[in-house]
Amino acid sequence: MKKNAVVIVEMGLRDGLQNEKHVLDADTRVEFARRLITAGSKRLELGAFVSPKWVPQMAGTSEVVSKALALQKAGDLPKKMEFSVLVPNERGMMDAIESGVKEVAIFAACSESFSLKNINCSIDESFERFKPVMALAKKHKIKVRGYLSTCFGCPFEGKVPEARVVKLAERMNKLGVYEISIGDTIGVANVGQVESLFKKLKKVVPVKKLAAHFHDTRGQALANILEAYKVGVRVFDASLGGLGGCPYAPGAAGNVATEDVVYMFQGMGIKTGLDLQKLIDIYPWMTEKIQHTLPSKVGKVGILKPLGAVTPS
Amino acid sequence: MKKNAVVIVEMGLRDGLQNEKHVLDADTRVEFARRLITAGSKRLELGAFVSPKWVPQMAGTSEVVSKALALQKAGDLPKKMEFSVLVPNERGMMDAIESGVKEVAIFAACSESFSLKNINCSIDESFERFKPVMALAKKHKIKVRGYLSTCFGCPFEGKVPEARVVKLAERMNKLGVYEISIGDTIGVANVGQVESLFKKLKKVVPVKKLAAHFHDTRGQALANILEAYKVGVRVFDASLGGLGGCPYAPGAAGNVATEDVVYMFQGMGIKTGLDLQKLIDIYPWMTEKIQHTLPSKVGKVGILKPLGAVTPS
Repeated sequence: MKKNAVVIVEMGLRDGLQNEKHVLDADTRVEFARRLITAGSKRLELGAFVSPKWVPQMAGTSEVVSKALALQKAGDLPKKMEFSVLVPNERGMMDAIESGVKEVAIFAACSESFSLKNINCSIDESFERFKPVMALAKKHKIKVRGYLSTCFGCPFEGKVPEARVVKLAERMNKLGVYEISIGDTIGVANVGQVESLFKKLKKVVPVKKLAAHFHDTRGQALANILEAYKVGVRVFDASLGGLGGCPYAPGAAGNVATEDVVYMFQGMGIKTGLDLQKLIDIYPWMTEKIQHTLPSKVGKVGILKPLGAVTPS
Repeated sequence: MKKNAVVIVEMGLRDGLQNEKHVLDADTRVEFARRLITAGSKRLELGAFVSPKWVPQMAGTSEVVSKALALQKAGDLPKKMEFSVLVPNERGMMDAIESGVKEVAIFAACSESFSLKNINCSIDESFERFKPVMALAKKHKIKVRGYLSTCFGCPFEGKVPEARVVKLAERMNKLGVYEISIGDTIGVANVGQVESLFKKLKKVVPVKKLAAHFHDTRGQALANILEAYKVGVRVFDASLGGLGGCPYAPGAAGNVATEDVVYMFQGMGIKTGLDLQKLIDIYPWMTEKIQHTLPSKVGKVGILKPLGAVTPS
């Protein structure tokens, strides 16, 4: 990574679309990936190998992966790309191996209540499930990214103790993941928490292995990213348009919008590798596909295009 | 001001409502002020003495001021309050004096095109207009706040040179204003610009006399406030709910939302003097009065209220 640069991991196809009411077919999702990659995206989570019964939005993930890999093989997409897929367990990992993807992501919660509600097992049990996944990953030379969710607050338990998050990050690091994404699943984090938690995390996990994952439920995501950057974090998760923020369910909100993040870093002179105008150009296409306005403000308004000087009449 | 504290100047009644399609009568505006003050607001701009022909939303400002002052006199509002009113010229200043208000605000643009379009005169001419206003202010012991608009970008000319903003801030300071609010009128500023401009401004105007005024057109306002805070700014303009962001006019957006700003500072352990829950409680009342959803995310969602721990079933 360049000294004055950040990496944005595109969540739109997974964390974004998975939380949208309207389901997009595999071809549209491949086209979404293609447009993102044309705008400079180099790390994308393409989907999740979860049961389509529970998450119909992620059905056809293997088709998305195989088509993306085929486009790459044909030279229609750059060779230097990192496609990843979320896997909840060994079964999902087998699907991932079969799909040919070279990176997967695993996830655990930092709150027992959230873990029970979300994946119907305790935090300890979720770490047990990681063992066969990590073994398969090693065998098949697949990189593994780890997510910790509800790191700043839980919808059931409220505040989540920092010490617990730090301990779980350490534990996940020991599993052999190459990066740990610290998630504010319900968009409740504030700048004070971000500073405090990441400073503690840095002591147990090298900061270059830490990523920040904010949802914009309370409009704090960009300020939180700025603070995380100041503490030394250089990898940020984001979704084009802020996908995932279902306008029909107040309280649920998507990832921070990729465009908004790029607008900020570009203004700071920090490289993201992304072309802001090309990202903005995807916005109207996606709002049409997803059938509602997306929260990204930069996506909505675009960059400033001066109308021309006014002279006295 | 306490060391670890910021001041939020409430813009809702002026910059907010003035840019809303729906016009609120004087009594509703007084009730809005009363609710804000109950939530801890100590500095409010109550309206503008401008022609109701051009700005019908601000008609009845003298009634708002006199009713607010009467409530204060009757002991129904705290004695230690700062009510202000925007005045564009001598005529407006005369109205302000008559209303009994003890503070006014004057404004100039940092772009000739914007000045011409907005108030039909050059920047120099607008400074000429300040002379009689400042003379009257001195005579009647009225405090004057200054606004500089389009400090980060102009809808007609695009980029605004920093040197020009710095020069105009110096010039405004010499007029005798007690504070200068640096405005991102069209919500185009980024963190890089904020850091750079305020560092230069601090060299010519004491930082305690500087305020930051961001519109949230591109979702950058909160990150910009965080950066301005880090550079030393302690006074921030905001509107409850993010009023002013007319949903019918893409490209126009209101001030940053008071609730969202308070959420951030509270999380940082920085005092605002405002009660976040009481601000959030105003949100539904105002959306009803203004007849549309307001952009504030904290206003919409509220603070986290845990649902209670989940146990294995």
